[in-house]
Amino acid sequence: MPGSKDPFALSAVDARDAIRAGALSPVALVDACLARIRALDPALQAWIHVDEAGARTQAALREEEAKSGKLRGGLHGIPVGIKDIFDVAGMPTTAGAKPWAHTRPTQDAPSVQFLRNKGAIILGKTHTTQFAYRDPAPTRNPWNPEHTPGGSSSGSGAAVAARMVPLALGSQTGGSVLRPAAYCGVVGYKPAHGAIPTDGVVPLAWSLDHVGVFGRSVPDVLLVLEVFALWHPGGAIHRPARLAIAPELLARAEPDVAAQVQAAARAFAGAGAAVDELKMPPSFAELADAGQAILESEAAAYHEPSFAKYADQYGAGIRSCVEAGLKRPAAAYVRATRVRARFRTEMGRLLASYDAVISPTAPAPAPRGLEWTGDASLCAPWSTAGFPSITLPSGVAASGLPHAVQLSAVPDRNIMLLHFAGWCEQVLGFTAAPLDMGPHDAGPQTPV
Amino acid sequence: MPGSKDPFALSAVDARDAIRAGALSPVALVDACLARIRALDPALQAWIHVDEAGARTQAALREEEAKSGKLRGGLHGIPVGIKDIFDVAGMPTTAGAKPWAHTRPTQDAPSVQFLRNKGAIILGKTHTTQFAYRDPAPTRNPWNPEHTPGGSSSGSGAAVAARMVPLALGSQTGGSVLRPAAYCGVVGYKPAHGAIPTDGVVPLAWSLDHVGVFGRSVPDVLLVLEVFALWHPGGAIHRPARLAIAPELLARAEPDVAAQVQAAARAFAGAGAAVDELKMPPSFAELADAGQAILESEAAAYHEPSFAKYADQYGAGIRSCVEAGLKRPAAAYVRATRVRARFRTEMGRLLASYDAVISPTAPAPAPRGLEWTGDASLCAPWSTAGFPSITLPSGVAASGLPHAVQLSAVPDRNIMLLHFAGWCEQVLGFTAAPLDMGPHDAGPQTPV
Repeated sequence: MPGSKDPFALSAVDARDAIRAGALSPVALVDACLARIRALDPALQAWIHVDEAGARTQAALREEEAKSGKLRGGLHGIPVGIKDIFDVAGMPTTAGAKPWAHTRPTQDAPSVQFLRNKGAIILGKTHTTQFAYRDPAPTRNPWNPEHTPGGSSSGSGAAVAARMVPLALGSQTGGSVLRPAAYCGVVGYKPAHGAIPTDGVVPLAWSLDHVGVFGRSVPDVLLVLEVFALWHPGGAIHRPARLAIAPELLARAEPDVAAQVQAAARAFAGAGAAVDELKMPPSFAELADAGQAILESEAAAYHEPSFAKYADQYGAGIRSCVEAGLKRPAAAYVRATRVRARFRTEMGRLLASYDAVISPTAPAPAPRGLEWTGDASLCAPWSTAGFPSITLPSGVAASGLPHAVQLSAVPDRNIMLLHFAGWCEQVLGFTAAPLDMGPHDAGPQTPV
Repeated sequence: MPGSKDPFALSAVDARDAIRAGALSPVALVDACLARIRALDPALQAWIHVDEAGARTQAALREEEAKSGKLRGGLHGIPVGIKDIFDVAGMPTTAGAKPWAHTRPTQDAPSVQFLRNKGAIILGKTHTTQFAYRDPAPTRNPWNPEHTPGGSSSGSGAAVAARMVPLALGSQTGGSVLRPAAYCGVVGYKPAHGAIPTDGVVPLAWSLDHVGVFGRSVPDVLLVLEVFALWHPGGAIHRPARLAIAPELLARAEPDVAAQVQAAARAFAGAGAAVDELKMPPSFAELADAGQAILESEAAAYHEPSFAKYADQYGAGIRSCVEAGLKRPAAAYVRATRVRARFRTEMGRLLASYDAVISPTAPAPAPRGLEWTGDASLCAPWSTAGFPSITLPSGVAASGLPHAVQLSAVPDRNIMLLHFAGWCEQVLGFTAAPLDMGPHDAGPQTPV
């Protein structure tokens, strides 16, 4: 039992175990998280809405249930944050937009309801870029407030990194879960497209939108996947990882990032994994343009009615996205979906022999400034294809910002990917944390 | 053994059994079909290309193999016709278009290759409307040459009806398998979208194109499905059919057609099926427009490059389709795919409790004249949704043209649908045939 830690710093798995053992009260855990939010969020701005009273009420109920041995499920008493494009009953959904776009849902999005049904306590809503596109949220990076936390799930990434909450939901259309997770030094995972329902989530582009999970470790993320019935404990895999690394993807990163990912690959190989070089398939050359065509067209289809009324109230980024989408012809969209289908086939064939392909999550650590949420180009292929992907923090750069590696796999291996990511996480042994985390897991980290 | 029949009139199952028993030679069967084609096709024009020499060579090989007990598979020695948008090695693919669009493939489309690998003998290519859209083929209806055989798989429907070949492949994007099958008094079936690969088939609209099968009975169609490994003999279902009938679909047919379908439903109920009324879901109102938007947009995406060069060499129907598609915006296409997704969900939920929904295959029997291939609006919902559907001949109208009923089911019930369609076929007891079929299965038929 990690009694030496403040409750807010517990991993979700440790908190779950402590609650089950009667050693931790859900009320104490929620109070610790709320206190942490009160202390840090004025500077970090990860949260747009914190439901203190509601969270305490839920925590008291979970505590009563825990005392009488009635655990609701794998997340009993665990606080979670929800990106503010998901509907949470009783909390406003703003999508980071102007008031005309706000709603007051009376029902949880199914993904939120799943968490709640399994005992999770919804602390509140985390900041998103406007309509989950590029116009930045006010959130700052917990490792350095002068840097972006990434987007669009800016608040979820920052909140989990800053130990305000052990778990958070986000969404990824291009690189909106893995990029902020990488910039904030936490684990970000999205399963294959459609594996977690996107109902009740403000869409950016239906065929690209994924629900994803932020946590501080792979086992914590697995707790959430269990809730979605995508994983059941047991059935561990006892063979070395078969990994691939794509030089073409490395070449798109800054040299120190590429070197860091290569070092991680060497560490995996040193720990027993097979690591091959993999050449990206021919369709990869067309995939980025195809993904952007799909994203803009679908965003235009969704926003067209409100855009006719409120175009001037859209942020510059999402406005230009919708404008570009409205100009695209159907035939171009169809051809883009054909490129995507070809990439799925070609990449699926290449990756069939591997548990995951390793690449940088982003070309560089979190950029300086809040205006730009960073480069999503290395996350986007897996979003466009709908393949599961995960980012693991892998070290701290000379600048003091975290490094990360991305692992991606074929669509039917949501859990297999997590299994091997868990192994990779152990090899990487990353324990650094931002802010005032105390000696047990703070301090500068040597890159792998 | 139906030794009383000319070989060309045998069902595929009877021919298969006779070949297996050594009572029928594949050469005799092919010769009988070729003779039938020579006798009737100058008037009917079901075939654009008949490979007499190649078919005889294949037949001789199949005969040798049969004699030495080496059967290639379930279609050993069975002649088939292939719609002329499928690639067949060594035969031209014209797609019913002008010479600039013709190709001379050296490889079979995978669907054709499947048939060939299982012993089928490819007799030749059957006429298609231009690019499988509306511009008519020269084919005539075997029941009355003044009437259309339907389209776009005009030749496949007519050839199977006229006993030129027991089985044929066609394709359906809107109503291009079931409509000609209904107009020609044969069985036409398409499984769920993607169940049979469309590679090597000239596309009309990728997300709507289905490979389908023409036969004279459900067991004959099942023979082909076995080849595609969608079905394995055995595992019969021993419970009464649960059928639904949709008054809204009946209302779209001419009164005598609606009455005929209702009579069929009563016959099914009389034979033990449960038959409920079913209300079409809300999204059905938008589905036809959505389907047309999808079709035109995807056709435009495929044809755009050749259209830039050869627009004036396109038939009026496909030209206006491509022109309309080129003008459609991406956002409209995306919204159309959203309507389709909603219909799939809503209809899938409604149909989950039923083995099939019964409806007219077309609003009327085959129209007079060859200029118009008929109304696909009652087939198209199942093509747009990608649900499996089958048409069964159910009687002969006062005009002497066949009546038909359509059965449709949810996507994961390709074979369940065929199973219950086989039961319905027995209840209907349709045995009429066009042309000079002799007393054993000709003669006027009383409508159910």
